[in-house]
Amino acid sequence: MSERSDGGDEGDDESDLLYHVDGELVPADEATVSVRDRGFMYGDAAFETLRAYGGDVFRWGAHADRLRETCDVLSLDHGVAADDLKARVDETLRANELEDAYVRLSVTRGVQPGKLTPEEAVDPTVVVVATPLPRGGRGSDPVWDGPASLQTVKTRRVPDRSIPARAKTHNYLNGILARLELRVTDVAGQSPAGRRGSLGDADEAVMLDSDGHLAEGATSNLFFVRDDALCTPSLDGPVLPGVTRAEVVDVAAAEEIPVREGSFTPDDLRDASEAFVTNTTWEIRPVESVDGIDVGGGPVTTLLSTVFDARVEREHYAEGGSEPNGR
Amino acid sequence: MSERSDGGDEGDDESDLLYHVDGELVPADEATVSVRDRGFMYGDAAFETLRAYGGDVFRWGAHADRLRETCDVLSLDHGVAADDLKARVDETLRANELEDAYVRLSVTRGVQPGKLTPEEAVDPTVVVVATPLPRGGRGSDPVWDGPASLQTVKTRRVPDRSIPARAKTHNYLNGILARLELRVTDVAGQSPAGRRGSLGDADEAVMLDSDGHLAEGATSNLFFVRDDALCTPSLDGPVLPGVTRAEVVDVAAAEEIPVREGSFTPDDLRDASEAFVTNTTWEIRPVESVDGIDVGGGPVTTLLSTVFDARVEREHYAEGGSEPNGR
Repeated sequence: MSERSDGGDEGDDESDLLYHVDGELVPADEATVSVRDRGFMYGDAAFETLRAYGGDVFRWGAHADRLRETCDVLSLDHGVAADDLKARVDETLRANELEDAYVRLSVTRGVQPGKLTPEEAVDPTVVVVATPLPRGGRGSDPVWDGPASLQTVKTRRVPDRSIPARAKTHNYLNGILARLELRVTDVAGQSPAGRRGSLGDADEAVMLDSDGHLAEGATSNLFFVRDDALCTPSLDGPVLPGVTRAEVVDVAAAEEIPVREGSFTPDDLRDASEAFVTNTTWEIRPVESVDGIDVGGGPVTTLLSTVFDARVEREHYAEGGSEPNGR
Repeated sequence: MSERSDGGDEGDDESDLLYHVDGELVPADEATVSVRDRGFMYGDAAFETLRAYGGDVFRWGAHADRLRETCDVLSLDHGVAADDLKARVDETLRANELEDAYVRLSVTRGVQPGKLTPEEAVDPTVVVVATPLPRGGRGSDPVWDGPASLQTVKTRRVPDRSIPARAKTHNYLNGILARLELRVTDVAGQSPAGRRGSLGDADEAVMLDSDGHLAEGATSNLFFVRDDALCTPSLDGPVLPGVTRAEVVDVAAAEEIPVREGSFTPDDLRDASEAFVTNTTWEIRPVESVDGIDVGGGPVTTLLSTVFDARVEREHYAEGGSEPNGR
């Protein structure tokens, strides 16, 4: 199964699907936006990657909150209620008869007169794309091909004072440039000259902040275990507040695993006893190696994954439907 | 006339125009891209703002070179020859019977399977948008409403090691956030609380680099005169190598005006005897004030504008057509 991620990765075969564009369900190959839409011209748009389990979106409330936060950062007053957005997502899932799915929800600033400075009155473009994504965990195959192989890259995470990392937007080139550093261009499968031998095998980039501290993966949050504590870069740095990240921190607290959100170096990650990356589609993905150094999973990763899977099972598949107190 | 800029600003009334999308001329209101185009999903696209005078694009060679440089940064091997791109621009101008026009040329990485990491094989989407833009200068009205009023903003220019500034891409939120700081949201026309009184009047944001030195405007390059030298932030900082910027430096050299490309502070600009901003559509636009401090034009600005206009006239309108040695 192909990699899918919080960064907005999608499935491959869309031919029979319906997408939701500007209030209408349309065949995927007719789902378009104007070339003058600011979402296209400037990446002037907010988005969320959602995960549907058993026909329902997991942690919709947290995603809706983060979308609102993104729109606040962009001063994008789109005027579409969260319930309306949710209804469009649900319509898309039902129209495609999707139970377990990847969903991408975008809200753009739409078409405006010809200035870079946005107008306050917004006629937004709302796009919902959904593709099948079978559930992993609980004995079935995970959504990722295998454990992640991480590589620290030279591309640094955009600082918050340039574009706040808490805004999840269509400006994704920073992560793309980071991922491009992992791409093997030699037909013989060799890593590019001057790079580590492991580079061609890495499938997630570790991005550092301006000071050289750990920030996040191109499409994931970083976690690792040191001295029996679960460590993750704090949101004080240029780190997206991942919905799965928050869930994992919550699970750890419930399991009485000490959590340290702070400022860490690449060596802290390389020397960890366990490590994993999280995002909405990967959920909890163990890290096999960092910069060619073996790390691997372990008991903490296994425990967190087990409890995470149990929450999904209880809220989305167990008899009697979702847990009323689900976060 | 509305502001138009190197940042990709466009005209307002597109109803009767034809745009060029993926090799075909189509009515503007049918000019679209797939919602799965990476140019829309991630802003994964290169673009150029072009200026046509008398039916010909000014400094096409410099724009083609910069587009190539952007695509190199993005590892976007789109395979469309510069001559082919130029032919699409020319077709768009002719189809709309446009002589003096604004043109935006975009090349995206197209639709690819569902990974953030780009595939090497690219089926690009090429979009050409053109709108009428009467020529300014030489006695007629300039394309801008009046001199620019600049305001230093808190949003810092994205550092080169996050996204190189020499890449002109559809990731334009950094400049949009800078411009949003200038937007007056109070209905009474008051500046937002805690901001300078001049903020509501400013129409271009001055962005600083990570160290607090002058970088560039949201859609323009900065120039000012100090001690009889023409000063501009060097391309060593996070500064787009503007085509008009290069032209102005060339004009200054031809007129034996000393040019200092270096690292400057906001005070250097505020204390200047003259200042102006440049981009492809504004050409040379005098600066009236910086952070509420009067600056204004002067003899150097006037000389550079006069020679710039003369070059355009000679190459695009004078009898006998364009100058063979035009850069």
